[in-house]
Amino acid sequence: MSDRRDFIKQTGLLSMAGILGVNKTTAQPINKTSFDPKPSKWADGSRLVVSATMLFEAGGQPDNAPSPFPPNMKPGFKDLPAATWYEYGYKEGIPRMLDNWDRLGIKVTTHMVGSAVLKNPALAKEIVDRGHEASGHGMTWKDEYDMSYEEEKKFIKDGLDAIKKVTGKTAVGYNANFLRRSQNTLKILQELGCIYHIDDLSRDEPFIINVNNKDFAVVPYTVRNNDLGMIELKNFSPDQYLTQIKMEFDQLYEEAATRRRMLSVTFHDRVSGTPQMVRAATELIKYMQKHTGVAFKRKDEIAKMTLKDPTSLRE
Amino acid sequence: MSDRRDFIKQTGLLSMAGILGVNKTTAQPINKTSFDPKPSKWADGSRLVVSATMLFEAGGQPDNAPSPFPPNMKPGFKDLPAATWYEYGYKEGIPRMLDNWDRLGIKVTTHMVGSAVLKNPALAKEIVDRGHEASGHGMTWKDEYDMSYEEEKKFIKDGLDAIKKVTGKTAVGYNANFLRRSQNTLKILQELGCIYHIDDLSRDEPFIINVNNKDFAVVPYTVRNNDLGMIELKNFSPDQYLTQIKMEFDQLYEEAATRRRMLSVTFHDRVSGTPQMVRAATELIKYMQKHTGVAFKRKDEIAKMTLKDPTSLRE
Amino acid sequence: MSDRRDFIKQTGLLSMAGILGVNKTTAQPINKTSFDPKPSKWADGSRLVVSATMLFEAGGQPDNAPSPFPPNMKPGFKDLPAATWYEYGYKEGIPRMLDNWDRLGIKVTTHMVGSAVLKNPALAKEIVDRGHEASGHGMTWKDEYDMSYEEEKKFIKDGLDAIKKVTGKTAVGYNANFLRRSQNTLKILQELGCIYHIDDLSRDEPFIINVNNKDFAVVPYTVRNNDLGMIELKNFSPDQYLTQIKMEFDQLYEEAATRRRMLSVTFHDRVSGTPQMVRAATELIKYMQKHTGVAFKRKDEIAKMTLKDPTSLRE
Amino acid sequence: MSDRRDFIKQTGLLSMAGILGVNKTTAQPINKTSFDPKPSKWADGSRLVVSATMLFEAGGQPDNAPSPFPPNMKPGFKDLPAATWYEYGYKEGIPRMLDNWDRLGIKVTTHMVGSAVLKNPALAKEIVDRGHEASGHGMTWKDEYDMSYEEEKKFIKDGLDAIKKVTGKTAVGYNANFLRRSQNTLKILQELGCIYHIDDLSRDEPFIINVNNKDFAVVPYTVRNNDLGMIELKNFSPDQYLTQIKMEFDQLYEEAATRRRMLSVTFHDRVSGTPQMVRAATELIKYMQKHTGVAFKRKDEIAKMTLKDPTSLRE
Repeated sequence: MSDRRDFIKQTGLLSMAGILGVNKTTAQPINKTSFDPKPSKWADGSRLVVSATMLFEAGGQPDNAPSPFPPNMKPGFKDLPAATWYEYGYKEGIPRMLDNWDRLGIKVTTHMVGSAVLKNPALAKEIVDRGHEASGHGMTWKDEYDMSYEEEKKFIKDGLDAIKKVTGKTAVGYNANFLRRSQNTLKILQELGCIYHIDDLSRDEPFIINVNNKDFAVVPYTVRNNDLGMIELKNFSPDQYLTQIKMEFDQLYEEAATRRRMLSVTFHDRVSGTPQMVRAATELIKYMQKHTGVAFKRKDEIAKMTLKDPTSLRE
Repeated sequence: MSDRRDFIKQTGLLSMAGILGVNKTTAQPINKTSFDPKPSKWADGSRLVVSATMLFEAGGQPDNAPSPFPPNMKPGFKDLPAATWYEYGYKEGIPRMLDNWDRLGIKVTTHMVGSAVLKNPALAKEIVDRGHEASGHGMTWKDEYDMSYEEEKKFIKDGLDAIKKVTGKTAVGYNANFLRRSQNTLKILQELGCIYHIDDLSRDEPFIINVNNKDFAVVPYTVRNNDLGMIELKNFSPDQYLTQIKMEFDQLYEEAATRRRMLSVTFHDRVSGTPQMVRAATELIKYMQKHTGVAFKRKDEIAKMTLKDPTSLRE
Repeated sequence: MSDRRDFIKQTGLLSMAGILGVNKTTAQPINKTSFDPKPSKWADGSRLVVSATMLFEAGGQPDNAPSPFPPNMKPGFKDLPAATWYEYGYKEGIPRMLDNWDRLGIKVTTHMVGSAVLKNPALAKEIVDRGHEASGHGMTWKDEYDMSYEEEKKFIKDGLDAIKKVTGKTAVGYNANFLRRSQNTLKILQELGCIYHIDDLSRDEPFIINVNNKDFAVVPYTVRNNDLGMIELKNFSPDQYLTQIKMEFDQLYEEAATRRRMLSVTFHDRVSGTPQMVRAATELIKYMQKHTGVAFKRKDEIAKMTLKDPTSLRE
Repeated sequence: MSDRRDFIKQTGLLSMAGILGVNKTTAQPINKTSFDPKPSKWADGSRLVVSATMLFEAGGQPDNAPSPFPPNMKPGFKDLPAATWYEYGYKEGIPRMLDNWDRLGIKVTTHMVGSAVLKNPALAKEIVDRGHEASGHGMTWKDEYDMSYEEEKKFIKDGLDAIKKVTGKTAVGYNANFLRRSQNTLKILQELGCIYHIDDLSRDEPFIINVNNKDFAVVPYTVRNNDLGMIELKNFSPDQYLTQIKMEFDQLYEEAATRRRMLSVTFHDRVSGTPQMVRAATELIKYMQKHTGVAFKRKDEIAKMTLKDPTSLRE
């Protein structure tokens, strides 16, 4: 069984890349992931790290926010049933998931929208008191890719402050609305004391980038293991979602024997908080837990471990 | 295995919620569902209540109502095949489902559009004579969220009157077209003698709200266990629909060991009346019936039991 | 196990229907299908009749006809790959299906577009020579719901003439483009000597209607057992399509023990002619053939049997 | 079990086709594929040829190219997360697939976009050095169906030159962006020394056409065994995609006992390079490899074998 890295050592591709004047920032990572003679491993000895995210957004959405209802209402009227669809997120969804995380014995990262935190502070506080990470997700449901530097800095800071005020914890990570950060977002996060963001789909392992001449961690996200994308946008049934992520896990677990691998999976309050989806998540996580060396970690733990590790991938 | 409620008793979140000046109407229910030290149960000893809805709408639709056919006809022409797709609802769909409910020994709630009732009175009467509940669904297929108070009151009352005239029964519940009630709907229903509505997706159990300073029951609906949403809007196959609701049932049945839980499932005449969907419904209901303590109830029964029960959830 | 018909005999619904002045044309069929004390059966003793349709349309489509390709081309250019997608229908699809029908020992009805017949006459002739029915499907791929009486009569007649000229057979049935007939279509078909049409989705058994004061048979179609609708419009995978129709069959076969039932299933040249879909069709039909009393019939046979049978349903 | 070819010999369809003045170019192939008394076989004795394509496009896409993200951004802003979705294609996708092809012991054809090759030359070179075919796919992500002859010739040539410069290999085949070639494309390819193209969906076996009075091979493609079409456009889950192609294989393998058959399957860098899709591909290919006489071939090998073989189908 030929191995990619062995193969590379025979042919002198690195030099060739130089000759052709390859853009370093893009050629480098390939060298790093594919051409590295000695495989990287997780610093703490984990074989595969699973990073689970629970979004806390419901309650903070604007009127008539997107929902499973066709958007065919006259302007000026409130979509009352859609509003109750969101209420489900904090009345049933998060409470159900919190019980389930305890039952399964895992801790997750919760990206919290500031307005949702202020609407249901008791629930936000409970999430943190039960051992889960509170991470930034903006002050409201709003695009930030088109904000000015000042506007965006206030938007992100207000959200982090709301979390601090209600939960007593300082958030050190960030997820932008729809992943769509601006050109300034990372700089702002670094200035605000954050150590990582997740709005990057380029890899199956965390890596370090340089922001304001300091290290900053990227804990990659995914749209394929994302409940909102699969259930609400792609119209998957829960069993399809479950099967897909099991396949994802099987492959990454196998690869994790020889190199550092991370699986990211996402749970939104009103989508993954339903009985059927909690059933799917339970089966999924129990399946993963049957495998030796699988570690469920909060994103702040992953970021810290990555920043400390001299063998971490750098871009 | 940590339990959510035990956990809460250790930390004093209720007080904290006060300090932060949480919006009572939203904070309350969380307290109720999550922080209640002693779990609620169904008054009649049922473990899990299943609420099945059969929609009687076909025949009452306007010309060229939405159908599986692409809407690409020139204006001024009638979509003849689409009209026969609706006819299927009362010619094959409801008769087939009625036989099936008897075979399975369950009673359902039928939300009846007034114009459909007048178009096929014999069928409407038969539904009621076979023991199923006739409940309101408006006089015609029309949005009511944008109606004036007077207009909407007449619209709802005409529908209820059509049901009374044809079936001899007084409807006490309501489902608005597309769930989209107006700000006045609940007030109107209370005035017209109704005791419950279903246009709320916020919970997996019924609850009591205050309308005109009187109690009014909410028997929650769902869009995820809704045949129209899954089969026609999300393009599920019947087996996906079946699997999804089985997963929903398994989770709720487990939760029902310690608290009051209800599963709602929906059957539209022209969608769930097909052979393949009746096959799916039969397997689903037989699966549920294999479990101890599962009670299939009409929504009027559920509403009455809820209104009588001092331990019912209130918002 | 309560039976719907027995139940009815106890309550006097028929009279009541009269009192309320029910629209006879709609109330009648209900009486017929639901209230008839003695169940109807197929005249030839079949338990369940399966009516399979193979569409012969490819080659006759206009330039840039709808295909799996996104329609994002500048006007004035020909979509060359989409054209080859259609070619597949007559180069691989129909030849493959023809071999399969022989292997399975069934005869089907082929609705043939006139322009497709003239483009590939040898194939059209072969279909008929191998024992399948050639039935009308218009002269070209064109909406006829908006044609004048004269225009539509010529459109239908030209299509029937093309079939006659190429295959030597006289077509006696019809399927309108997208099922969308005009108000004149049935009158025209009766005038042209046709005995049935299929553009009706209202029932799971054939029935007789009155056209120009003569009997005319309706051999109902379906959009749910239609490959184009499921595979191309609903994005089903072939296994979903297979499972769905097996469920449809199981229910109809059970019902067929006590009343006349028909299952209709559709195969389009470029959609069901692929290897994966022929695989699905093979498994489906073999599954059906394992059941006693299942008869695969051409629609002309079904129409003739229906018109001859005094117990046939009339509307 | 009647056989299609035997049947034909009894009836004299060929002559009839003449009488009716059938368009030779379309009637011929039918005769060839269906009426040929002695079945065609692969020259090298393979029973079934599988042609796998790995697209190398990521990195070469324009800003804000289509992605799984809803296209609802204000103009003038860069979709940063979508860009990282593409990066995944060359950072994880292709390296993962390359290891997998080696593990499975197969060689594939890689259609390479010129701009992607120049962006990641080391990876392009590695693909070729590991034994896979580099084939043309245009200089950039651009429609060519609307280009002038000169413009298109330069566009295609620049892409082929980039491949030559980076990999040292001369590409002899072509795949147009979205399969949408212009009326001049084949002529241009012939002039540039290419021997085949794949932008044709009409058959399940390769064939020869005449371009500039010289033979040119068509190695047919498919949209149904295409990951981008199924996963991103039809929203299939990987297990649906896997099941679908297994069904496709089973039918073609059976047909391949008596005639030449080819199965084409497609893998895009950012779509099929995910862990879950590589898992599906591994199971699919291992399933195929269990069958005797299944040969995985590069498209250049298939084209050469076809052009040499006097029994090849001609149009």
